[in-house]
Amino acid sequence: MKTYDCIIVGAGILGLATAYHIKMKAPNDTILIVDKFEGPGFGDTSKSAAAFREFFYSRANILLARSTIDFYWDLQKNQGIDLGIKWIGYLFLMSHSEFESLVPILKKMSREGIEYKTYLPEDLEDVGFRTHVLKDEEARLMNLKNIDVGLFIPRAGILKIENIVKFYETELKQLDVDIMYRTEVKGFILEPTKPIGIPEEPFPWQEIKVSGIRTNRGTFRAKRKIVVAVGAWCESLLNPIGIGVPIRPKKRQIFVLRAENKSLLKLLRSPKFNKEEILPVTILPRGIYIRPEPSENAFWVGYADKLGRAYTLEEDPQPEEEFYIYGIYPVLTKYIPQFIDIRPINAWAGHYDINVVDGVPIVHEEANLIVVGGTSGSGIMKADALGRIVAATYIGEEYAELYGGIKIRAKDLSLSERRIEPEKLVI
Amino acid sequence: MKTYDCIIVGAGILGLATAYHIKMKAPNDTILIVDKFEGPGFGDTSKSAAAFREFFYSRANILLARSTIDFYWDLQKNQGIDLGIKWIGYLFLMSHSEFESLVPILKKMSREGIEYKTYLPEDLEDVGFRTHVLKDEEARLMNLKNIDVGLFIPRAGILKIENIVKFYETELKQLDVDIMYRTEVKGFILEPTKPIGIPEEPFPWQEIKVSGIRTNRGTFRAKRKIVVAVGAWCESLLNPIGIGVPIRPKKRQIFVLRAENKSLLKLLRSPKFNKEEILPVTILPRGIYIRPEPSENAFWVGYADKLGRAYTLEEDPQPEEEFYIYGIYPVLTKYIPQFIDIRPINAWAGHYDINVVDGVPIVHEEANLIVVGGTSGSGIMKADALGRIVAATYIGEEYAELYGGIKIRAKDLSLSERRIEPEKLVI
Repeated sequence: MKTYDCIIVGAGILGLATAYHIKMKAPNDTILIVDKFEGPGFGDTSKSAAAFREFFYSRANILLARSTIDFYWDLQKNQGIDLGIKWIGYLFLMSHSEFESLVPILKKMSREGIEYKTYLPEDLEDVGFRTHVLKDEEARLMNLKNIDVGLFIPRAGILKIENIVKFYETELKQLDVDIMYRTEVKGFILEPTKPIGIPEEPFPWQEIKVSGIRTNRGTFRAKRKIVVAVGAWCESLLNPIGIGVPIRPKKRQIFVLRAENKSLLKLLRSPKFNKEEILPVTILPRGIYIRPEPSENAFWVGYADKLGRAYTLEEDPQPEEEFYIYGIYPVLTKYIPQFIDIRPINAWAGHYDINVVDGVPIVHEEANLIVVGGTSGSGIMKADALGRIVAATYIGEEYAELYGGIKIRAKDLSLSERRIEPEKLVI
Repeated sequence: MKTYDCIIVGAGILGLATAYHIKMKAPNDTILIVDKFEGPGFGDTSKSAAAFREFFYSRANILLARSTIDFYWDLQKNQGIDLGIKWIGYLFLMSHSEFESLVPILKKMSREGIEYKTYLPEDLEDVGFRTHVLKDEEARLMNLKNIDVGLFIPRAGILKIENIVKFYETELKQLDVDIMYRTEVKGFILEPTKPIGIPEEPFPWQEIKVSGIRTNRGTFRAKRKIVVAVGAWCESLLNPIGIGVPIRPKKRQIFVLRAENKSLLKLLRSPKFNKEEILPVTILPRGIYIRPEPSENAFWVGYADKLGRAYTLEEDPQPEEEFYIYGIYPVLTKYIPQFIDIRPINAWAGHYDINVVDGVPIVHEEANLIVVGGTSGSGIMKADALGRIVAATYIGEEYAELYGGIKIRAKDLSLSERRIEPEKLVI
């Protein structure tokens, strides 16, 4: 049985960033990362919409996203590591009444340094959106609303997940971190903190810690701590040992629509919003989002359906064509008629690992095990900061220093001493 | 398809109390309660240790428990309804260091009006506890600690669950509430809040509400709201429609030990603590509790094992003899050697419905559905107050008036606007 100082379960973006920052904090500690998939980020990391924003309500989420994005941007801008970051912004299209209800939230966010500007319906019509949908009887029947305001967030954009994964993985190899793929955790080893020395241990009345993992490729022991960074698999891994975290998996789908005609190309290459001359990541009134992929002349389109979409884990989630046809297309084509008759040329599905209570990530230590997750669909844009918070927790520091120098109390993200504002802007 | 104003899923103590208080608030509303079992409280309600206390850390928990117990006590004392309430108190046995770490908590609780007194080891030895266990080499090896302090809580005791269930059920019959047993919910009916009028509804982009239940005995529609009061079954019922609450089931067991000999009878009938001349509900240092059942000359003994005990739902949970032998007996007999060689004459198992985040019950409304649960092993002693909070939520009142007149903001127990102190004293 091989022993490491630290075992990390999960080589998704959170596991990789965590290993990197533990190595920064404790360079002599040996680390093993195990992952059931064939390579790094092959789980839900690779299914992401690959967009980022620091536009959150919760101060914790703002700090996590801002410092992570700043870190990524420094790599790209100053270290010559192309992460595919394009600052194209986010554009939320909404009615007057939706905007009105957002105003107090925007005021609070302004105080946290979040900038925004607004566009008028005329501007949006120029770009290619249909704002006065209520002229259309069907749209009225569908209970849709006119677009009265375009809320633009400049500090946001798109990036290339695989490049970020590659960055961390390359660093980890140089730092002598062992990564074992195709290695599935079947269970944890529980041991008494003060053993008696008989084989039946641990007994229920003993104080117990988690001290290792059993996998299809053998048993491994962690001298110091175990980190569980498995996203949607959190419950299925931790329920059996009785560690409870309010993280649930929910299927999420992305459909790729090619900008097949001139009017869609015009929309995609809109020069109005940013220097990249690309349409921002756009969120339509009912929550459908459109994420440009300029390198493919395409849009990635998705929708985070809530009620009616089960919390359930699928080992190989598949996109549902019906979901595009009945769940997305009818609304999409009301606001952007250029998409009429356009069918997806590609699609995929993954999971959000949703924190069902407050929508802010969790970094929680219990019995020598640190669980990090509950990123609720915004894990990649917070991964580096979360890695630093796990590393601080790992070495027992009260505060984690995020990129840029801001400090955050590590236990603010725990369950036992949680101190965060609930998030109101889960997309 | 029959229609009611209100459908309540679950005829356990929470469902019954809820129906009662909705009827008090909205006497003309028709109510249907459905339950998969054969009678009222036949699920985990009947598996309870049937003890009560208002000794909680969280102010919300104190209010819920205190007002519920006061309500029950008024019924017994002034209305001639025997609920089997005996004010025998709780007795926590602990080491100096455990007591020291409890002091700030006790101070805070004192401010909430929680009374307590302490006993010295001599007093406890008189009653029949062995306090200096560290004389025993095995106890040292087991890492046990001496009992240095007995912390006694007078406002606590035992009651008869079946009598409380009977009270609510009798009332409900007089109030014309329909109760259907052997009726299992197979799913919920989801409808758009603003229907278009075509059979494929609801579509993912529509605003959706829960409007009915499908059961093995037909489909029922709720005109107003649906209440889910299913305890440990919460996740399995709500996950499929994508409503997420941080409530998880965990198996809990009770073993019945008869006071077979004089020394155990002396312990059971200890006159030291209360007018009933019964041993208080006693909690040993590692968390094993002993709940006297004087009518049977017996003790009910249990232990809420945490790490290592899976969060999982069993349709018919069974007590494990091994759990008594290896999990309870070794510690129990160190502190109370009178139990040596005593084997359980009876045992049963149920579930706690644990709020894995903060240990305070949840009353949360979403899409016309109110979920009440997460009582974490103390649901019966909070049931009446929770019923009142659900009733306030049902009729849309901001504040619920608990028995005794104290008001509590109903949404303080919700997930979206939760405002409670986390509980530190889950037993």
